[in-house]
Amino acid sequence: MSGAAPGPLHPLLTSGVEYPFVKLERRRRELAPAGVASINFGMGDPREETPLFIREALQRAVPAVSSYPATNGKPELRAACAAWLARRYGVRVDPELHVLPANGTKEAVFTLAFAMISPGSARDTVVIPTPAYPVYEGGARYAGGKPYFSPLQSADGWRFNPDRVPEEVWKRTALLWLNSPHNPTGAVLDEPTAARIVALARRHGLWVASDEAYGDLWFEGDAPGTLLAHGLDNLIGLYTLSKRSAMTGFRSGFMAGDPTLIEALKRFRPSVGVATPDFIQDAAIVAWNDDAHTPATREVYAAKRRLFLAEFARRGWQVEASQGTFYLWMRAPGGSRPEDGSDDVAFVESLLRLGLVTTPGSFLGPGGEGFVRWALVPTLAQCKEAIARLGQLAGVAT
Amino acid sequence: MSGAAPGPLHPLLTSGVEYPFVKLERRRRELAPAGVASINFGMGDPREETPLFIREALQRAVPAVSSYPATNGKPELRAACAAWLARRYGVRVDPELHVLPANGTKEAVFTLAFAMISPGSARDTVVIPTPAYPVYEGGARYAGGKPYFSPLQSADGWRFNPDRVPEEVWKRTALLWLNSPHNPTGAVLDEPTAARIVALARRHGLWVASDEAYGDLWFEGDAPGTLLAHGLDNLIGLYTLSKRSAMTGFRSGFMAGDPTLIEALKRFRPSVGVATPDFIQDAAIVAWNDDAHTPATREVYAAKRRLFLAEFARRGWQVEASQGTFYLWMRAPGGSRPEDGSDDVAFVESLLRLGLVTTPGSFLGPGGEGFVRWALVPTLAQCKEAIARLGQLAGVAT
Repeated sequence: MSGAAPGPLHPLLTSGVEYPFVKLERRRRELAPAGVASINFGMGDPREETPLFIREALQRAVPAVSSYPATNGKPELRAACAAWLARRYGVRVDPELHVLPANGTKEAVFTLAFAMISPGSARDTVVIPTPAYPVYEGGARYAGGKPYFSPLQSADGWRFNPDRVPEEVWKRTALLWLNSPHNPTGAVLDEPTAARIVALARRHGLWVASDEAYGDLWFEGDAPGTLLAHGLDNLIGLYTLSKRSAMTGFRSGFMAGDPTLIEALKRFRPSVGVATPDFIQDAAIVAWNDDAHTPATREVYAAKRRLFLAEFARRGWQVEASQGTFYLWMRAPGGSRPEDGSDDVAFVESLLRLGLVTTPGSFLGPGGEGFVRWALVPTLAQCKEAIARLGQLAGVAT
Repeated sequence: MSGAAPGPLHPLLTSGVEYPFVKLERRRRELAPAGVASINFGMGDPREETPLFIREALQRAVPAVSSYPATNGKPELRAACAAWLARRYGVRVDPELHVLPANGTKEAVFTLAFAMISPGSARDTVVIPTPAYPVYEGGARYAGGKPYFSPLQSADGWRFNPDRVPEEVWKRTALLWLNSPHNPTGAVLDEPTAARIVALARRHGLWVASDEAYGDLWFEGDAPGTLLAHGLDNLIGLYTLSKRSAMTGFRSGFMAGDPTLIEALKRFRPSVGVATPDFIQDAAIVAWNDDAHTPATREVYAAKRRLFLAEFARRGWQVEASQGTFYLWMRAPGGSRPEDGSDDVAFVESLLRLGLVTTPGSFLGPGGEGFVRWALVPTLAQCKEAIARLGQLAGVAT
């Protein structure tokens, strides 16, 4: 094989830099105490059971003769999604014109900018409030777009403030990502700001994608609304069963919004190969059609949240935002928030020594420095064990 | 909503032109005889049953607690893929370094060029022998690449001839797509040509992706080999359960090949959101580990093929290539093969009047004009009914 010249690779894949999360995993192995099982508050993968009726619906739906699924999904799935939007948010959409299933919303997040940006586009910018779910940036970059990061601020209650983005950036923006309740800060966008953002998008002729993966997980104030309550023009909402129904492994969600964009995605997505298997769609139909199981899910997270909020308060550790999602957004104790993330990484490493995995805010983008994200996904028993371990914490303010 | 300026869309999504397949579906509805059910030889979606042990493996695998699947797949799945490559092709690969599951190979085809081409790449060309599966072109274009179509020739036995591509094109090529057995022509690449292509790729420093979706469906000569028999450098093979195990609706396949490219894809694909649900991976593991069900699948298609080849011979209709796949590649009778595709479209329309759906070769890319693709996916009974209907054919040579 010697002498073969390798083919080209995208420059994003060839940097020799160690990925932050790869480095964190390496540090976890180095620092984990011997004989103590790690408790993982790092990744947001719920450990609750998927309701039995949903699992049974999938098992019943496996067909004798298998067919290519349709990208647009079964009519019954689109209808179930539309009916859920009406019940949950009071928003009426037409399942034929405004709704499109996704094979989990991650692929929808990644591929969305591809339908908007082409080489040489005058509109090549994707505005991303940070810290954030990293796939917004990945999708923008691989589509040939330019991400513009707008760091969220404690002073704004960690809510996106559109005035912090210069007018000349908006003029070349194709897409703005919103995420409410927000990962990692847990902030919920307020309605007046949402209305201002929607008006701005319609004035500038840009799309707003509202990732509402955590929409059913809120703990303070009223239930969050959906951005689509402001009308469909220029807007697309993303909704998933992953958190609402503990179905991360099923890969099922949907998009709803502006019929012009939905129509374009119906043209685009058949090539992409992201149609959802019919048996998973059948499980999704019963999941969206049932609201009885979601308050129990919320209560499980609420119990863990009360536990940690009490413990953090006792220690004088400050939690900010965190009105929704299953994350707690905590200021690294004793830190002064230097921009290289040393404060949050040092604190996260002190937790790794106790076998507790969390995520440094600096890993999640500009603005996250000095904060730590706790994903309250371990079981209640594991959460109690974690709190017991915090008693051994040395060398940081308690 | 008045006054809202819509956001930008990719130019590929905004042309007012009616898509060929949309037009064909419209013509089908216009021309279908009243009261006669259509028999669909158009799309390659098998109507055979998925073996029961595969369906049961999926049902058993639905877990109580659902987890995000890993992009790299379960170790048992990678091992099953590697073991199948060894049994089927005598090719030894390391499941940890050379194998990567795909959520069906369509998404792998679409996203592959994204890992290779970036804005401003000197290597921006994707060479596609045509007529072909349309997703090779879609993936190239959305990645910002330039497709270079190399029309296949009857004179070459419909096999790709690398000498027909100019040297200056190879110098800017990132990726060459091969497909053997080939959709739509059924041609199987010969080993000397395969060796020449592999040497060329290594000399020029480009990737060759070999889509071998139909590798287990062959009817003349020896079983086709895999391109990976020529070593892994610069090569990636794509393999799927869709046709081999009648699992189109499960969306499961894999890639294997050059460790440099597999490593890059392991970095790229976690962002894309195309990890396969674990319960589908469990079904795929038992499917790849079993060879007993594939000869029966092949025999079903062989029976249909004998039926049609005899009928076409009786009518003096010429079939070319078609050594493998479940397609027959037929010269439109009476046509002189004009480049606008009028010959093949006219013949396909004459079949639509009998309630028989086929695909005009011209819809599948340059070089397909004057030919028609029959996908032998209806049941044997439907195939016999279709042949009976051909007796009513008027106005074309019989």
